[in-house]
Amino acid sequence: MYIEKIHTPADLRKLEVSELKIVADEVRDAVLNRVSRHGGHVGPNLGFTEATVALHYVFDTPTDKLVFDVSHQTYPHKILTGRAHGFLDDADTRAISGYSSPIESPEYDYFEIGHTSTAISLATGLQKGRDVLGGTENIVAIVGDGSLSGGEAFEGLNTAAALGTNIIIVVNDNEMSIAENHGGLYANLRLLRETYGQAELNFFKTFGFDYYYLENGHNLASLVDIFRRVKDTPRPTVVHIHTEKGHGYAPAVEKQEAWHYRSPFDRETGKSTGPRDKSEYMPSLLGDFLREEMKRDPKLVVVASAVPMGLGFTADRRREAGAQYIDVGIAEEEAVALASGMAKRGARPVYFTYATFLQRTYDQIAQDLCVNGNPAVINVLGASIFGMNDFTHICFFDIAMLSHIPNLVYLAPTTYEELVAMQTWAIRQDKHSVAIRVPEGEVYHTSEPVDTDYSALNTFRVGHRGSRVALIAAGNFYQKGERVRQLLAGQGIDATLINPRYLTGVDTELLDELKKDHAVVATLEDGTLDGGFGERIARHYGPSAMRVLDFGVKKQLYDRYDVDELLRENHLTDEQIAEDVLATLAAIG
Amino acid sequence: MYIEKIHTPADLRKLEVSELKIVADEVRDAVLNRVSRHGGHVGPNLGFTEATVALHYVFDTPTDKLVFDVSHQTYPHKILTGRAHGFLDDADTRAISGYSSPIESPEYDYFEIGHTSTAISLATGLQKGRDVLGGTENIVAIVGDGSLSGGEAFEGLNTAAALGTNIIIVVNDNEMSIAENHGGLYANLRLLRETYGQAELNFFKTFGFDYYYLENGHNLASLVDIFRRVKDTPRPTVVHIHTEKGHGYAPAVEKQEAWHYRSPFDRETGKSTGPRDKSEYMPSLLGDFLREEMKRDPKLVVVASAVPMGLGFTADRRREAGAQYIDVGIAEEEAVALASGMAKRGARPVYFTYATFLQRTYDQIAQDLCVNGNPAVINVLGASIFGMNDFTHICFFDIAMLSHIPNLVYLAPTTYEELVAMQTWAIRQDKHSVAIRVPEGEVYHTSEPVDTDYSALNTFRVGHRGSRVALIAAGNFYQKGERVRQLLAGQGIDATLINPRYLTGVDTELLDELKKDHAVVATLEDGTLDGGFGERIARHYGPSAMRVLDFGVKKQLYDRYDVDELLRENHLTDEQIAEDVLATLAAIG
Repeated sequence: MYIEKIHTPADLRKLEVSELKIVADEVRDAVLNRVSRHGGHVGPNLGFTEATVALHYVFDTPTDKLVFDVSHQTYPHKILTGRAHGFLDDADTRAISGYSSPIESPEYDYFEIGHTSTAISLATGLQKGRDVLGGTENIVAIVGDGSLSGGEAFEGLNTAAALGTNIIIVVNDNEMSIAENHGGLYANLRLLRETYGQAELNFFKTFGFDYYYLENGHNLASLVDIFRRVKDTPRPTVVHIHTEKGHGYAPAVEKQEAWHYRSPFDRETGKSTGPRDKSEYMPSLLGDFLREEMKRDPKLVVVASAVPMGLGFTADRRREAGAQYIDVGIAEEEAVALASGMAKRGARPVYFTYATFLQRTYDQIAQDLCVNGNPAVINVLGASIFGMNDFTHICFFDIAMLSHIPNLVYLAPTTYEELVAMQTWAIRQDKHSVAIRVPEGEVYHTSEPVDTDYSALNTFRVGHRGSRVALIAAGNFYQKGERVRQLLAGQGIDATLINPRYLTGVDTELLDELKKDHAVVATLEDGTLDGGFGERIARHYGPSAMRVLDFGVKKQLYDRYDVDELLRENHLTDEQIAEDVLATLAAIG
Repeated sequence: MYIEKIHTPADLRKLEVSELKIVADEVRDAVLNRVSRHGGHVGPNLGFTEATVALHYVFDTPTDKLVFDVSHQTYPHKILTGRAHGFLDDADTRAISGYSSPIESPEYDYFEIGHTSTAISLATGLQKGRDVLGGTENIVAIVGDGSLSGGEAFEGLNTAAALGTNIIIVVNDNEMSIAENHGGLYANLRLLRETYGQAELNFFKTFGFDYYYLENGHNLASLVDIFRRVKDTPRPTVVHIHTEKGHGYAPAVEKQEAWHYRSPFDRETGKSTGPRDKSEYMPSLLGDFLREEMKRDPKLVVVASAVPMGLGFTADRRREAGAQYIDVGIAEEEAVALASGMAKRGARPVYFTYATFLQRTYDQIAQDLCVNGNPAVINVLGASIFGMNDFTHICFFDIAMLSHIPNLVYLAPTTYEELVAMQTWAIRQDKHSVAIRVPEGEVYHTSEPVDTDYSALNTFRVGHRGSRVALIAAGNFYQKGERVRQLLAGQGIDATLINPRYLTGVDTELLDELKKDHAVVATLEDGTLDGGFGERIARHYGPSAMRVLDFGVKKQLYDRYDVDELLRENHLTDEQIAEDVLATLAAIG
């Protein structure tokens, strides 16, 4: 086996070009070994296997620097840079992350990257840094065609070209984002592919890049040749290579969208091996609801930004939705501005994306949407400690990011029925910009009646009226509040339980009323404490005698955490919360 | 006079094309009347006067919809849409804002716009909304060449083209941003100008736009002709018009950067008429410091995003700084990612922009910079109630936006000396991503020694040790804290005064120690209360008996406020704060 002997790319560079195919096949096999057992990004890694081998073969890594966009295609790179054990040895899999990681490899990985469209921008920093410090290494950014739809990639291209010095941008064009591409730009990429890069009209050349095209991005001799031609170029250069997503593994090629990321599967058949999860999933239920609502309301338009499956918008369902569905590509800024404009024009836009990606559009939410007060709806997905847990995909900063924005109404439903009621209200009203925190984790239902009108802003709902202690438990954590209430009841404390519903304001009347017969208020939120909902309650009670305990997640970086551990470390188990409340009660006598 | 009789654009459309020049001259005169007396955007409005007349002449406004980017060029538009009084009648000037405003004119202004690069995106919303609802009006977005450097503009272009229906994007190319343009794209715009739009290599055509070029963007007959050609087009269309910034007023043409925005001036000479403000200005002092530091440290690189004058980087000073200065255009996302990459490569990047524009790059600060912990420095300008006060330019949400981001160190200096000490430390250290809140308003100095090492994070500094009451007064508001302390001293209260220095964490040891002999803690911050610094203190003391009063600005939209009124309404005058503290002390006995 070759790859077991490749400890660094220098070992790779001792081989003949003719041997590289064997290396690539072994790399692909190692990738499949890992993803079939543990899940992970399949298509992106298989499609960039040969190119990665050729890059490390031609460039003097780590002196020359590779920066991978999204970095979900870095498995081959990891295998060639001393981390093959994470792909060959089952025991080591969890030690190696799914993204580029300077912690794992300070020499070969320069950035933690998980969001799209950042590689060119980050690489311009290496480029400018090198130029100022008098370095001579090659800076290579690798970016997928899908990622080019993000504004940051454009800004990076614009700067890279203006700097005018060595930077090589490898555009890995597999004709796909996670789903199909969206945007006028993609007609130009198609034209370039169809003309083998010869078309006069060339997006990259408009910036001033030197431009090279390679039709077969899996041919190692061609890859080596083209990279050798551009190595040490003194000019900003684009190498546009045409690849096949999922290359070399038939199931991944046949169904490219489904095989972008996969849970564990049988390598022979491609079938999932994990237990099929038949439990309800809130975003799926919401997607079903919206699809029905679209049929009832022709003004309703669902807006996606390249993660259609977040609400279960399969290719069939996208087609069925027709003009009532629009995907803007990886362009969250555009998505929010578009939604604002649509709402202004009288349509009823409903945007959705994951909380971590919504971070891209803080300013557009504040300015393009909320300053204008246009009635668009944003569904915030995965916003929870139960969501994605990679370093770069943490989804629980949303309350801190959104709740201080003037004119935004951010709602936190606690059950499916409440989600539907809030969604329905948000879609049909025309006064407020509304975001809705779609619950993650277990799906809860209620048989109790749910309010249908949320226009009386910042009115909390009392679920149970007790005394001495009040639990204000938001969204996802309402059921935790109920469990804590029961624990306290077991200790003779009849605690009040409140569903705040609104994350963007406090019910000052209710809070003041609680002062009469409550001594302790505990806030529970499934998110970061700093800037969170609980602090607003603490501020309200600051001048009073009320004791306030805010429960949430401490501010720090998190990476591939265990949820139960996270809960314990943040004093967020039901028992810990109850204990802390009891201790506070005891302390005040 | 024509314009006094033009109450709506319908009145304009009754005129002959040959009469439009007179209208344009009157509009220009009215613009100059306002800006010379009251200040405002000069170059953008003078340069787009003829085009605005022609747009309203050709298109059926308000059925056809115009969306202006930044909207600092909308004075002519306002004059032609029933708001001429705001330009002719001195008394009415303040009633008419400097930006497009649906509050002023719901028929003709569709969005509050102040940030750049949003018009195309917002217009795609009108476009898609029209298509879904079955409308037939023209959607026209007006965008300057400078604004094209922003990622949101790119995302908008990409979507507009993909929608494939009527949208007309008027690119107002005056070869300028506020300062000169930066980015590879601008070479293509130059090529297009030089070839009168005939060059094969055409940025806009790569997206699939139909494309028209007009060399003289001030010739009314040509403008009317070209707009008539594209009116009612069924296709996404770009009309690229070449204009002169400041056209028709010699001083503004001669010094285009200085005349982008001007305080009041004498129309004859172009000289400023306001009293020359000779007082110190903190950002200017910081710019001076950085320019000296750049000479000492060749690794130091200052990064700007199209507002170089924020730190006094005049054209001469930019030239002098050479490779140690880089302007990325209106591309805040790129600026932060570039800074992160540069820091990674061993350079010492110092980025600066206004707090309101920094909102564009929340995700890049969190992901590209802070997850990676790269030691770049961000100077946050204008972050204060004393900064810009237009609807869309409010600069005091920065603490709420930044302070919950893990791994960021956000410092709030209180004096020039502390600013320099923090800046020096931040530039030379290599462990933290650091943002610094550059004080606004009056410049304070201290003759006391200032710490030079800020690596012991979240250590507050006690300025005066008293008892019963502690004032924690951040940054800008430290001197207010001192004044409140003196007021309290007059009432026999010897209050403790603390400079927290760090906005991204609390000094738990000091806070706990205060419990011994303090009953009330008041926090003072020059920013929004929700998500602000004070709430973190309130949370810390939540479970304890300490009474906490957070002083700051209530969450709401603000527009052209009076600072003194704002202070009073938010209970932020020195006297009000002292009163509230005393009342709380009295209440607890």
